[in-house]
Amino acid sequence: MGEGFGVMAGVWIAGGVSGAHLNPALSFALACTGKLQWRKLPVYWIAQYLGAFAAAACVFAVYLEAIFYRTGGQFVMTDEDPGFAAIFAPYPSAYLSMTGAIVDSIVGSALLLICASAIVDQRNCKVPVSLVAFYMGFAVMGLGISFSMNCGVPINPARDLSPRLFTYLVGWGQQVFSYNNWMWFWIPLVIPHFGAVLGAFIYIVFVDAHWPA
Amino acid sequence: MGEGFGVMAGVWIAGGVSGAHLNPALSFALACTGKLQWRKLPVYWIAQYLGAFAAAACVFAVYLEAIFYRTGGQFVMTDEDPGFAAIFAPYPSAYLSMTGAIVDSIVGSALLLICASAIVDQRNCKVPVSLVAFYMGFAVMGLGISFSMNCGVPINPARDLSPRLFTYLVGWGQQVFSYNNWMWFWIPLVIPHFGAVLGAFIYIVFVDAHWPA
Amino acid sequence: MGEGFGVMAGVWIAGGVSGAHLNPALSFALACTGKLQWRKLPVYWIAQYLGAFAAAACVFAVYLEAIFYRTGGQFVMTDEDPGFAAIFAPYPSAYLSMTGAIVDSIVGSALLLICASAIVDQRNCKVPVSLVAFYMGFAVMGLGISFSMNCGVPINPARDLSPRLFTYLVGWGQQVFSYNNWMWFWIPLVIPHFGAVLGAFIYIVFVDAHWPA
Amino acid sequence: MGEGFGVMAGVWIAGGVSGAHLNPALSFALACTGKLQWRKLPVYWIAQYLGAFAAAACVFAVYLEAIFYRTGGQFVMTDEDPGFAAIFAPYPSAYLSMTGAIVDSIVGSALLLICASAIVDQRNCKVPVSLVAFYMGFAVMGLGISFSMNCGVPINPARDLSPRLFTYLVGWGQQVFSYNNWMWFWIPLVIPHFGAVLGAFIYIVFVDAHWPA
Repeated sequence: MGEGFGVMAGVWIAGGVSGAHLNPALSFALACTGKLQWRKLPVYWIAQYLGAFAAAACVFAVYLEAIFYRTGGQFVMTDEDPGFAAIFAPYPSAYLSMTGAIVDSIVGSALLLICASAIVDQRNCKVPVSLVAFYMGFAVMGLGISFSMNCGVPINPARDLSPRLFTYLVGWGQQVFSYNNWMWFWIPLVIPHFGAVLGAFIYIVFVDAHWPA
Repeated sequence: MGEGFGVMAGVWIAGGVSGAHLNPALSFALACTGKLQWRKLPVYWIAQYLGAFAAAACVFAVYLEAIFYRTGGQFVMTDEDPGFAAIFAPYPSAYLSMTGAIVDSIVGSALLLICASAIVDQRNCKVPVSLVAFYMGFAVMGLGISFSMNCGVPINPARDLSPRLFTYLVGWGQQVFSYNNWMWFWIPLVIPHFGAVLGAFIYIVFVDAHWPA
Repeated sequence: MGEGFGVMAGVWIAGGVSGAHLNPALSFALACTGKLQWRKLPVYWIAQYLGAFAAAACVFAVYLEAIFYRTGGQFVMTDEDPGFAAIFAPYPSAYLSMTGAIVDSIVGSALLLICASAIVDQRNCKVPVSLVAFYMGFAVMGLGISFSMNCGVPINPARDLSPRLFTYLVGWGQQVFSYNNWMWFWIPLVIPHFGAVLGAFIYIVFVDAHWPA
Repeated sequence: MGEGFGVMAGVWIAGGVSGAHLNPALSFALACTGKLQWRKLPVYWIAQYLGAFAAAACVFAVYLEAIFYRTGGQFVMTDEDPGFAAIFAPYPSAYLSMTGAIVDSIVGSALLLICASAIVDQRNCKVPVSLVAFYMGFAVMGLGISFSMNCGVPINPARDLSPRLFTYLVGWGQQVFSYNNWMWFWIPLVIPHFGAVLGAFIYIVFVDAHWPA
């Protein structure tokens, strides 16, 4: 099982690197800080959730036989062990409370926005556009390594909801949402928006506001 | 055995990084989309297959004694276990069907072409020529990590056929081609061309066509 | 325990990458060599120690439940085993003498300043400002890998004192300072300043002084 | 023992990254191809061997107590097992013949020069001077991963002789040279010069000569 995990994790990491800006919470924070027009937000969101869903379907298609081979075709999960459903969408560690998950999600997505704001701020490090994707990928990878222990880096709602919905549709059933008495699935879906806005404002207050006009 | 694998994998990875464009399927897709003249394609292909063959010979020369030491000089493989022949050319996991391998190969090489198209598209991220090789290497490495579990990243026909031919010549015999009732060797040889063309057109339809003229 | 270590180490590494210049010893060496005004030094130092303290608090908040889960809520350490306090501030290996720790700290911080001086020296490699952070991160990561065995890379006083103070406040108590008969905590706090100045002057003598005026 | 190895390997890798051009064989090949004045070669060589010696001394100073702790202060090696002397200078695997080591060394150093020639060739990828060190480090790291199994990447005579001499002086004695009936130590010292020149000429014949004048 561990073997399969490692490889598949690679799919998500690679996806994260190239698609670092495909994050609904990030788009929301940009809209809140006036860097993205509000009327464009729904289009971005739809694209982001659809893209993540397509990616989940791709992974499923490529690893269909591997998953069947390991699970014996039984797509089941319990409240103790999400099993192979955890390949697609993350689930929290047993010791983590709801409060703990919320703190984790807020700190993680705030840090993401601080990094993202610094990278694209042309008055700061003058990162050329050809390196922005590279730096964003580095930031996401750093956050991914640092925050994976508690509950799988809950900083991107699209990266969370779409694969979860996909696992629901292909047979893992309502458990993917009702896990932990319905007290888990909405955290990575809702909380990153607050964390991202917080991070965006932290950058504005502590850095942005201090550049000469 | 695992020990040797790890190190030798390094040889191929390093080769992949520097030679990311040395891929017959990629050249074919560029020809199909009008970015490479058709009459140049055969020259590219010959160079690519010869280069990969030379690389296989180099690896064999350097690790000749290591391979002899581990195999006892017996270059044999069975349908259950390709053994050391798998150092040179990949073989599929036991659970993988022909359909599964084809899906894997198409998705992988389509993603490669989407990445490659984005990297060289000067209207997109304006990647300077000095960073193209670096980004291509990153893309290939990412695909390599994500797609190695099923059947060893079948996205480059030259990287597959030439080393396979080499193992045939130095003593592993017809088994390297007849593995799995002749139902394996042609997949990484043929399918990546379809996947690459698919990926190239996906990029054109979804991105390229939307740039202002 | 090892499991938790690995993940949390990621937090510090990520922090080191982005905050490579947030080092009081580095600022001190820049002041000594006339590259930073002395009157600005106290402001830098205060910011650096506060920042590291805030980072330690962040890590504690995010991993509070993980730490409680593993320690059973007992924040204790002995002179033989610093336990979980070692997640925040480093402690020396058992075999290391005071002299050994001092040598390690001087060599490490001297190398850091040699690297940093070379990176920002525009007459040397002409590193563009957008890549300085990246190269500094690489240098710190390289030093981190090479020097972690003896006593946890004692090259940044802020990265050491602030988390140590934090562990003192949240319940590990005076042991975090009195470890090894009070003969450890001051080494990563004081020695890097000497090493950093040494490294800065080595660069000036061996490289800087040889550029045409 | 393995534990210590890993960490110390980091020292050498970091050294290799920053000092990728500090290679006597590389300088020799540049002189042979007219890119370095012959009269400057001795100065480069002296600096390179002295630098590598100083680095070995540094590593020894920092890890003195770790080495004493593990070896019990006995600096001994046999023809079967070089023991801790292998931390400083490499020794071949048991299965490797003299011919095998020579082939490994020639292929490795030829590849190094092909990479180095391509990186600095301004008519090729136009690598800016600020990225040359980074790409060279990548090339050396790639070669290091690929060629470490046989006999420890024998492509840099200074990186080999100086640490070996150092281990001779601090107490491992003549064994470090007489290992394998005096039939090992001269290979990484002499052969890389041939390999490097070969690689430099391969690049000239296959690439350099084809640029328009």
